Amino acid sequence: MSSRLVAVVAGVGRGTGAAIAHKFASQYPVVCLARNPESYQEVVSNINKSGGNAIGVTTDLSSAKSLGSTFDRLEKEFGDDFGVSAAVFNASTRPVHKPFLELTEDEYAGGYDILGRGAFLFAQATLPRLVKSVEASPHPPSLIFTGATASIKSSAELVSFSNGKWALRSLAQSLAKEFGPQGVHVAHTIIDGVIGIPTTVEAMKGAGRYTKDTLIEPEAIADAYWYLHTQPKSAFSWEIDIRPFAEKW
Amino acid sequence: MSSRLVAVVAGVGRGTGAAIAHKFASQYPVVCLARNPESYQEVVSNINKSGGNAIGVTTDLSSAKSLGSTFDRLEKEFGDDFGVSAAVFNASTRPVHKPFLELTEDEYAGGYDILGRGAFLFAQATLPRLVKSVEASPHPPSLIFTGATASIKSSAELVSFSNGKWALRSLAQSLAKEFGPQGVHVAHTIIDGVIGIPTTVEAMKGAGRYTKDTLIEPEAIADAYWYLHTQPKSAFSWEIDIRPFAEKW
Amino acid sequence: MSSRLVAVVAGVGRGTGAAIAHKFASQYPVVCLARNPESYQEVVSNINKSGGNAIGVTTDLSSAKSLGSTFDRLEKEFGDDFGVSAAVFNASTRPVHKPFLELTEDEYAGGYDILGRGAFLFAQATLPRLVKSVEASPHPPSLIFTGATASIKSSAELVSFSNGKWALRSLAQSLAKEFGPQGVHVAHTIIDGVIGIPTTVEAMKGAGRYTKDTLIEPEAIADAYWYLHTQPKSAFSWEIDIRPFAEKW
Amino acid sequence: MSSRLVAVVAGVGRGTGAAIAHKFASQYPVVCLARNPESYQEVVSNINKSGGNAIGVTTDLSSAKSLGSTFDRLEKEFGDDFGVSAAVFNASTRPVHKPFLELTEDEYAGGYDILGRGAFLFAQATLPRLVKSVEASPHPPSLIFTGATASIKSSAELVSFSNGKWALRSLAQSLAKEFGPQGVHVAHTIIDGVIGIPTTVEAMKGAGRYTKDTLIEPEAIADAYWYLHTQPKSAFSWEIDIRPFAEKW
Repeated sequence: MSSRLVAVVAGVGRGTGAAIAHKFASQYPVVCLARNPESYQEVVSNINKSGGNAIGVTTDLSSAKSLGSTFDRLEKEFGDDFGVSAAVFNASTRPVHKPFLELTEDEYAGGYDILGRGAFLFAQATLPRLVKSVEASPHPPSLIFTGATASIKSSAELVSFSNGKWALRSLAQSLAKEFGPQGVHVAHTIIDGVIGIPTTVEAMKGAGRYTKDTLIEPEAIADAYWYLHTQPKSAFSWEIDIRPFAEKW
Repeated sequence: MSSRLVAVVAGVGRGTGAAIAHKFASQYPVVCLARNPESYQEVVSNINKSGGNAIGVTTDLSSAKSLGSTFDRLEKEFGDDFGVSAAVFNASTRPVHKPFLELTEDEYAGGYDILGRGAFLFAQATLPRLVKSVEASPHPPSLIFTGATASIKSSAELVSFSNGKWALRSLAQSLAKEFGPQGVHVAHTIIDGVIGIPTTVEAMKGAGRYTKDTLIEPEAIADAYWYLHTQPKSAFSWEIDIRPFAEKW
Repeated sequence: MSSRLVAVVAGVGRGTGAAIAHKFASQYPVVCLARNPESYQEVVSNINKSGGNAIGVTTDLSSAKSLGSTFDRLEKEFGDDFGVSAAVFNASTRPVHKPFLELTEDEYAGGYDILGRGAFLFAQATLPRLVKSVEASPHPPSLIFTGATASIKSSAELVSFSNGKWALRSLAQSLAKEFGPQGVHVAHTIIDGVIGIPTTVEAMKGAGRYTKDTLIEPEAIADAYWYLHTQPKSAFSWEIDIRPFAEKW
Repeated sequence: MSSRLVAVVAGVGRGTGAAIAHKFASQYPVVCLARNPESYQEVVSNINKSGGNAIGVTTDLSSAKSLGSTFDRLEKEFGDDFGVSAAVFNASTRPVHKPFLELTEDEYAGGYDILGRGAFLFAQATLPRLVKSVEASPHPPSLIFTGATASIKSSAELVSFSNGKWALRSLAQSLAKEFGPQGVHVAHTIIDGVIGIPTTVEAMKGAGRYTKDTLIEPEAIADAYWYLHTQPKSAFSWEIDIRPFAEKW
């Protein structure tokens, strides 16, 4: 089996997605997907400069057609029969906080577009290539979904986001049960805390509440995903929660 | 406050929905919604024959427009300022059991159309009238969502249904937290077992597995909804599970 | 089957236990158990005065010997073969709030003595009589355990209480699965809020935070237990949560 | 701070405990606790032979006195002020499967003795030394508890074991919330499957059901514990589940 094995990360921005792309670039060519090229360009460039191999593809995850074009592009890059060792669904939507009766139908559907249909389409696009990579992949092929506090607790005035996140977690659980026995490791993470990216760090500093380690380091999340990816077949984790040491929960 | 107070039941078929409509008809005029008139005609007729007051309106819950027409119709029937004492979202979709990679995008979206958007639209249509009925309603105005085993456990090869049911449960939890303090009781049920309607009873008898009480009696579910509706403000339940005595779980 | 059918309520004080005893006294002779006679005397007297039939027995639930003496006493009262239609385990311990490293071994064990061993002994004492009452009881014989917020969420500095409450919930779940198929309804409640008894009402008034309905009315809890008890075999609930409408959760 | 930093593993037998001891021996002197010396002698000997540093101490975890003697012994070995970088509570009891009404009070209490009081005593003995090691420890001092499927699901006829395991999980959650902010990482694992030790491998082979990876490799569990231990302060996991790829759940 000489086909290329790649890692695909959907939802690459400045924080978690970028850190995950960097981490997986240590072993695989990494495909970075985002709706806007500005989101992934710097990451892709940095990986390539530091000796890794990365490619960015502008993709609207909520569109089967867009995702289809993306995979056509990847076949040109890596060959028709390229395999996937790791697929990370890190895309999300901006949470809409507002009283329920002020939420528009479009805002409600926004959560579903990415966290529902987007995750569905991404899983359908990557699972055939994950399944066929079971023998060749150095670690069990992995499909990892990024969740949040809102994945297990639905707060007032946050309907769109939490509905999407609950649906996403349900998808991850169903797929873990269907594809685990086929050798593909499907996992879900609960990121319970604010992630430390420049904007959140500045905001916390501005509020006089910044202390090192009170924001989750994106690199630590990437380490968790890498740990999940490298678990052997005899010991798959479905879910792992991650929060800063001082977080209230 | 002399406006009429009604109960609205979405998803009235031969089983649970019909039993709920009958139960709430003992105290309120009951509005029965279903996609096809055949689903509610007999129920409506039976309630009216037995001295109750019921009306059926053909409604596509996944369409804001259809739901809007329905409420226009109800205003004509009950007056512009009619109130809602109880709204029950009992609509569902037929679960699609199939390997994930064979699921079409339309089949996936089917779960969301009713259990996601449909529930969202129904809640937006009924909550303003539930809120304004807080003082006048004989019991705290109630919005009750019907869930299933798949609402808390996502099985293999059942992605569309369970994604929708998890999203629905998330909606119920968020709304309970937002509208409880306003005096509206939002609740969710987990119906964990096969409901005894003629077709399931026949199927079980055919399989030689029928015993009384191994299928959930729709009237018992209706009693649970009525119990939830009559809980006082000091003691709201958010969630209740219901299963036959011999069910494995 | 002419044997007497009784209700047994363990943990009868001024609040929930008393309300439950009163409620079940409408249909059964009620046995009130408490460690101190002062806890049940007034309740027993009130039930008997109002035409019901109640008896109080001083019992240390954490002692098999004490519970044995209690049942000897009940056999003298109701006949050797008396049955039990409802058994309610409403006993608890006073939550110990303190830093973990200051908790003594005795304090830790205190939670277990009642919520662990006490519940075990009570279930062993009542289940044989619940099982044998399946045919004769007007409603499915029921064993109901009282839980709390701490049954599903373990807070800092509350180890003893929450360890006991989690163990109790585990017991309720296991027994529901074993005895449900035998026709005995085992259920668990999550009482998530402050119960309105004279001392808590005064405390809230003193703090200027008292509003009607912000404390759970014991009678509403008793209604929930009665509803659970009267569920038919085809529709048993295992768990129900109860909280005031304005409670944060 | 020149005090010694050690790892303490309670419940060292041939499987998980031994693998954990070996893993942590790569960085720390390891203390192996078990009720019987035969349980730990081989592990201790192997670690010492392979260049590590291990010591075994016979300890009855359910006895404060026994645990006190153990720590006296450790002070002689490592100095009065020795620190603890990692404490693993891997002790358990043999699950008692039997109808509830046949369970003796002693059998019931057996689950509590180790999983309840034993865990409590172990946490009280190690936490002061974990807290004081926050600055010096190369990784955040960690207290990890081993759970099982029975920690989140209580089956019929398994009351003693699941009561103990639920209490243990509650302890882990409470301690995570209290000691996380102090810099100590408290975590809980859910080992959901059969662990591959010689006896289980032989049993599965005898049943013709043995396939590589269908039993959890103890080394993979040890890797999970090590991963948890090495998580930075900004990204602590409280809980992680582990099961073989083909496990039904």
